[in-house]
Amino acid sequence: MSEKTIEKFKAERERLNKVVMKYSDKSIKRFYSLDSQVYREGVLSGKIKELLGLVASFVLRCDDCITYHIIRAYEEGVTDEELKEALAVGLIVGGSITIPHLRRALQKWDELQKAKSQEGRHEG
Amino acid sequence: MSEKTIEKFKAERERLNKVVMKYSDKSIKRFYSLDSQVYREGVLSGKIKELLGLVASFVLRCDDCITYHIIRAYEEGVTDEELKEALAVGLIVGGSITIPHLRRALQKWDELQKAKSQEGRHEG
Amino acid sequence: MSEKTIEKFKAERERLNKVVMKYSDKSIKRFYSLDSQVYREGVLSGKIKELLGLVASFVLRCDDCITYHIIRAYEEGVTDEELKEALAVGLIVGGSITIPHLRRALQKWDELQKAKSQEGRHEG
Amino acid sequence: MSEKTIEKFKAERERLNKVVMKYSDKSIKRFYSLDSQVYREGVLSGKIKELLGLVASFVLRCDDCITYHIIRAYEEGVTDEELKEALAVGLIVGGSITIPHLRRALQKWDELQKAKSQEGRHEG
Amino acid sequence: MSEKTIEKFKAERERLNKVVMKYSDKSIKRFYSLDSQVYREGVLSGKIKELLGLVASFVLRCDDCITYHIIRAYEEGVTDEELKEALAVGLIVGGSITIPHLRRALQKWDELQKAKSQEGRHEG
Amino acid sequence: MSEKTIEKFKAERERLNKVVMKYSDKSIKRFYSLDSQVYREGVLSGKIKELLGLVASFVLRCDDCITYHIIRAYEEGVTDEELKEALAVGLIVGGSITIPHLRRALQKWDELQKAKSQEGRHEG
Repeated sequence: MSEKTIEKFKAERERLNKVVMKYSDKSIKRFYSLDSQVYREGVLSGKIKELLGLVASFVLRCDDCITYHIIRAYEEGVTDEELKEALAVGLIVGGSITIPHLRRALQKWDELQKAKSQEGRHEG
Repeated sequence: MSEKTIEKFKAERERLNKVVMKYSDKSIKRFYSLDSQVYREGVLSGKIKELLGLVASFVLRCDDCITYHIIRAYEEGVTDEELKEALAVGLIVGGSITIPHLRRALQKWDELQKAKSQEGRHEG
Repeated sequence: MSEKTIEKFKAERERLNKVVMKYSDKSIKRFYSLDSQVYREGVLSGKIKELLGLVASFVLRCDDCITYHIIRAYEEGVTDEELKEALAVGLIVGGSITIPHLRRALQKWDELQKAKSQEGRHEG
Repeated sequence: MSEKTIEKFKAERERLNKVVMKYSDKSIKRFYSLDSQVYREGVLSGKIKELLGLVASFVLRCDDCITYHIIRAYEEGVTDEELKEALAVGLIVGGSITIPHLRRALQKWDELQKAKSQEGRHEG
Repeated sequence: MSEKTIEKFKAERERLNKVVMKYSDKSIKRFYSLDSQVYREGVLSGKIKELLGLVASFVLRCDDCITYHIIRAYEEGVTDEELKEALAVGLIVGGSITIPHLRRALQKWDELQKAKSQEGRHEG
Repeated sequence: MSEKTIEKFKAERERLNKVVMKYSDKSIKRFYSLDSQVYREGVLSGKIKELLGLVASFVLRCDDCITYHIIRAYEEGVTDEELKEALAVGLIVGGSITIPHLRRALQKWDELQKAKSQEGRHEG
């Protein structure tokens, strides 16, 4: 997922969230607001909360949720080593059935890292 | 999902069901027959049964099943308000992990509504 | 589940909810409030919403949730026939893995019915 | 699970199945019949089908279903080695979340083996 | 899935596994090695183990895992009849929510069979 | 769960793990070793890894796994506030179907806290 693909993922997500809002009652709207509230910095940092959300999404095997938390984890400055250790917990808890999601999660992470290193070169 | 896309979804489903029948033994065939039997009008209306099937598919997060029941709910005359309330139950029971499915479900609903309003205009 | 057992189930639930509240932050409290909001009468009746909640809990195989919705469905005046048809949808969607939950759900329903018929006799 | 406990498990199961039949419509009854049909000897032996049912129940983490298939696998003459290998597949596919079920499954198997060896001694 | 598509599936899998290895720590690598170990011929044949893996993947509804085991089952010489019976167990355990996966699984099987019969003709 | 109950939980777990080892082949043993390895202090602290394991177990709704990680989180010095925030993420991701597990998780936490405060009094 190059930066462009990330923009595409975000744009699609934005577009569909508008459709959700069009057909949503108060309950769905309040749930959306709660959903962003729980990841806010508290006694646990935003970074740790994203790792919690990532591992939860990973063992429940929801690709879109995993992609979202991979991007957010990247934005929060999670390192390669931290990601590996968090996903290793997810893999052992969830078993081999999570492996296809592990592949896609790490490919997205790889593309984010490559986009960053290219950016660095452009700026250099 | 325009009417054309719905036709495409239905055609694909039909085509693959033929492959299933080619390789199916008596058990699989009997299950298929049971599967259509439980949604038939009884003391609960066909509409309510489709909403039950929709919410069950929604919390189990099966996109093809959700699409099928969205189309069937539409055919049974479910209104926007009824759909919202049913999906709100699904969202609260199933949590944020269902949100990507909520997005896709409501987009399909939106396309069905748009196709209808266009049809109306053509006929007008 | 005799009326006494139901009182016991409700009392235990009440007691544990107090423990939840003791350790809950604002997010958990807001979720609890949302959770009761979605089952309130709307364009769909309270009865239909309980059946939706029941089938969702049933296919996700959560015994405590099923017991809760069985009691609520009973209070909303769901009939034997309506319950059978709703659970038949759940069984076909969820498969034989739900059968142990079907057994426990219907045993609770049976006890509620027996308690009612005994009450009737006492009052007679 | 001594032979007595197995009898108890079977008796409870029998009793609850009667409650199910009391409240079941034709769909539920037909599903029950299908459910016993798929485990019958075919081109795959009854033993292999029980191992398939066991591993399916194991990764879906349904204790009552696992107990049922453990007893059936024992009746079909599955050996310790065969059980270990089947459950090892289940454990790797399903991950550490299945470990509590692995513990309970093997304890039941252990009790079945002990009951058999005691029987042997009594008869000797 | 023609032979070409299978090669494509295998190539994509290979490519992504390299990304996994790039970001994997010792735990993930050891899990990968365990994952291939449990399917090796033991007291249960490789064929039976593939059917166990297939049914486990099927009830957990992981398309990539199902495709992998469908290919492996084909390579192990599983017959149409054996596949039907194994998937019938999966369908009854897992319910109608598995039907979209049944469709895709059997379509892949169908393409493998067609590729084989075409090969036979070419060689004839 | 008083300290005594915790000892009981640990003793039962120990006893059943011995049964597992009795019937386990090399694969199961290697998985057990991997399972303890992933929670060891790395670039992520043991405390954070326990919270990841807790939230993963929570959304997958495995009571024994949750109890285990609640005890381990307590041993790692997780505070009330940290626990609340981690479980709030789990609740929002997993939905109301997780509430019975939330109740039981927090009751165990409450008993651990009470045991500690009593101990303090005894030592005072």
